[in-house]
Amino acid sequence: MAKFLIIGGVAAGMSAASRAKRKKPDLEVVVLEKGRFVSYGACGLPYYVADLVKHVQGLVVHDAAFFKEKRGIPVLTRHEAIKIEPEARYVLARDLDRGEELKFEFDKLAICTGARPVIPDYPGVNLTNVFVLKTAEDGIRLKQFIKENSPRKAVIVGAGLIGLEMADAFRAWGLEVTILKRPGSILKMFDDDMVALVERELAEKGVELVKNAVVQALEGDGRGRVRAVVYEGGRCAADLVLLATGAKPDSGLAAQAGLAIAANGTIVVNEKMQTSHPDIYAAGDCVGQKHLLTGKDVYFPRGTTANKQGRIAGENAAGGNEAFPGVLGTAVSKIFDLTVARTGLSAAEAAREGCDFIVSTVAHPSHAHTYPAPEPEEITIKLVVEKKTGKLLGAQMIGKMGVAKRIDVFATALSKQMTVEEISRLDLSYSPPFAPVWDPVLVAANVAVKKV
Amino acid sequence: MAKFLIIGGVAAGMSAASRAKRKKPDLEVVVLEKGRFVSYGACGLPYYVADLVKHVQGLVVHDAAFFKEKRGIPVLTRHEAIKIEPEARYVLARDLDRGEELKFEFDKLAICTGARPVIPDYPGVNLTNVFVLKTAEDGIRLKQFIKENSPRKAVIVGAGLIGLEMADAFRAWGLEVTILKRPGSILKMFDDDMVALVERELAEKGVELVKNAVVQALEGDGRGRVRAVVYEGGRCAADLVLLATGAKPDSGLAAQAGLAIAANGTIVVNEKMQTSHPDIYAAGDCVGQKHLLTGKDVYFPRGTTANKQGRIAGENAAGGNEAFPGVLGTAVSKIFDLTVARTGLSAAEAAREGCDFIVSTVAHPSHAHTYPAPEPEEITIKLVVEKKTGKLLGAQMIGKMGVAKRIDVFATALSKQMTVEEISRLDLSYSPPFAPVWDPVLVAANVAVKKV
Repeated sequence: MAKFLIIGGVAAGMSAASRAKRKKPDLEVVVLEKGRFVSYGACGLPYYVADLVKHVQGLVVHDAAFFKEKRGIPVLTRHEAIKIEPEARYVLARDLDRGEELKFEFDKLAICTGARPVIPDYPGVNLTNVFVLKTAEDGIRLKQFIKENSPRKAVIVGAGLIGLEMADAFRAWGLEVTILKRPGSILKMFDDDMVALVERELAEKGVELVKNAVVQALEGDGRGRVRAVVYEGGRCAADLVLLATGAKPDSGLAAQAGLAIAANGTIVVNEKMQTSHPDIYAAGDCVGQKHLLTGKDVYFPRGTTANKQGRIAGENAAGGNEAFPGVLGTAVSKIFDLTVARTGLSAAEAAREGCDFIVSTVAHPSHAHTYPAPEPEEITIKLVVEKKTGKLLGAQMIGKMGVAKRIDVFATALSKQMTVEEISRLDLSYSPPFAPVWDPVLVAANVAVKKV
Repeated sequence: MAKFLIIGGVAAGMSAASRAKRKKPDLEVVVLEKGRFVSYGACGLPYYVADLVKHVQGLVVHDAAFFKEKRGIPVLTRHEAIKIEPEARYVLARDLDRGEELKFEFDKLAICTGARPVIPDYPGVNLTNVFVLKTAEDGIRLKQFIKENSPRKAVIVGAGLIGLEMADAFRAWGLEVTILKRPGSILKMFDDDMVALVERELAEKGVELVKNAVVQALEGDGRGRVRAVVYEGGRCAADLVLLATGAKPDSGLAAQAGLAIAANGTIVVNEKMQTSHPDIYAAGDCVGQKHLLTGKDVYFPRGTTANKQGRIAGENAAGGNEAFPGVLGTAVSKIFDLTVARTGLSAAEAAREGCDFIVSTVAHPSHAHTYPAPEPEEITIKLVVEKKTGKLLGAQMIGKMGVAKRIDVFATALSKQMTVEEISRLDLSYSPPFAPVWDPVLVAANVAVKKV
């Protein structure tokens, strides 16, 4: 019986496992996961820490017992893969509870090791009360610390989506929050003019944002606990520090095994999700994606992409022939009362790509004033449009409601290379509770049409 | 100075006026409106009656004084056009307050007379306490009646969007509500299997629905007030009756003037919004639309379409050259806690068009279980897909949240003739508060792909 082995049991890994088993029920499918939890929504960790989700089980889609019993897929948790032997076709793994090394043979392998947090080499980075947030275990540790120690002051290093979502989570516990951001753009997948709206929201919600803060060290209290973050020109007291300084593909095992690794550290895969070894697949946050607009390789890890890629890897490992087309860089996040969303290229990205483009920004109500329960809120939409053709290159939206799925209209339009004129003519849904008579999407397109 | 005269000052009319004046500031633009209110959101009338909007001014976008002072557009309210003379180029209108007839000359004319409610010729239809809901005046009369008379029981004749939205409004006042529906489909722009979800919601919200009720008469109390609706095989007591039996294009003036009228009663226009007389435009609920999928003329009156068409009529009357492409039949409505939305062809419509199609229905959560504030709610999505090509023909969605703007993804896909396979590959936005890791749109497309 052929055997499909999977390293990593969170998003991509479990998608690959389920899909392969469904496609080919007599395939032996085994998953190795170094953590205690499988198949959980890591994107939900900020809501777990905020205590909107009380128990970590609330993040889990299915547990290992479910996969074993219902799907016939053994999932070995606390089993860390330590070596891949592509030619001998086995993986060495360590059973973290028993300390023993085990050998797992495979016919097909999928590497779904995900990403690791980038941990800067600040002096003091190993003090207790210094956290990262990547795995369920990280979340448990952080929430437990908050519950048991009632900290008053959190310092977040980094101002990407995770940093900002976690500012919200810490404020939910009543903590004072300071975000230290190194020189450069905050929330860099958005243009600075859009980020200004986020900065206003942070200020309104009592979050201090220190820009251009070059962190020099984490300062201990002499008993191993962090008590301050020292940066060039300043010092910020802290009862806890969250390092939200980005994530990088966890491609070490693949590299050791001699598989091709891209310059950005991702495992090289083709659109079938095959690595440089045709029987070894990789999917999820350890691989890159093709950007559908530029054709270039990017690293844009998202949970939804990991699931799609995992499914394709599983399909193909079980004899299928599916392809992952690529990404548009679509993303959405809730930051306090704001929803921030984007797809395609920002103006900064379009400039870097050498595009000849115009930008057009409008603010328009989320729905009609004739349905005031709740009152409409303004949505700001920035479009990036190719000058010569009028084709949409990207969209950014920020508002308090009605943002998330409106960005998907632009994502759909991008996937068909629509012009803003075509978008302005769309027959979109209208009813006072849901849209003004001119939907913000149409208003944004109408205004952009005049500028092209 | 050239003069652009507009009959009707609600949606299409005021859009035409504003656009023409903006395009050509020296054009004399005059609007005749038979009612007291202009530029109001008639789609908000159910929320006005429900008292979510307290004052009728809350429906108004701009009043006549605003148009006169800010835009230089005189709007003559309570002026009812009674005759159009296309060759002599004038319109006769009656000043309803003074009773005198006035002559308004024009170089270009736009007819934006909207729709009239269909009023069945039941005996007793002229009793007091029998209402329709089309104009602001209708809404004022109805809400005033409820406030002053504290009725206990409302009977709604008709189960289209207005009838169902009004059931919600009456329940908000604590009225008992019975809907009488003649034989045939409820909410006929949806397929019956989707409507079953709406029927369940009505039942849960305490609304009685009597299907196949052939109304015979409205029964009076001897003092001119309605006290019951009598239908074949039944009788239903009523303190008020709302006739929500549809609307028809108000094309009488245009017909008298010799302009071409279509079989469905709409004023015939080309894509420039010109009637059979090139200097006379028509726009809004008095005209039809081309269906973008079938190429056929349909009558699908929507406020957003009226605004778009009005704008194009105004643009072109002022010397422009814009075209209205047509509609996909996109619609959304809030019915109690449900959002019902649709675009393209229903299965029933696809069958009537002779399409060879499959249908595919899924139910999937609105967002991730890892964001339980609020808990996700199931969205039911039905897709109609052309068998041979896999192209989407239509989508219907019903759920409690996240429905309205998701239907727009399908509307966008329809406008580009996308296949369900293409839709299944879209890079849509994901974050736990807004979507599950597999968006319902993607799940619906994925399931449909397997059936094609």
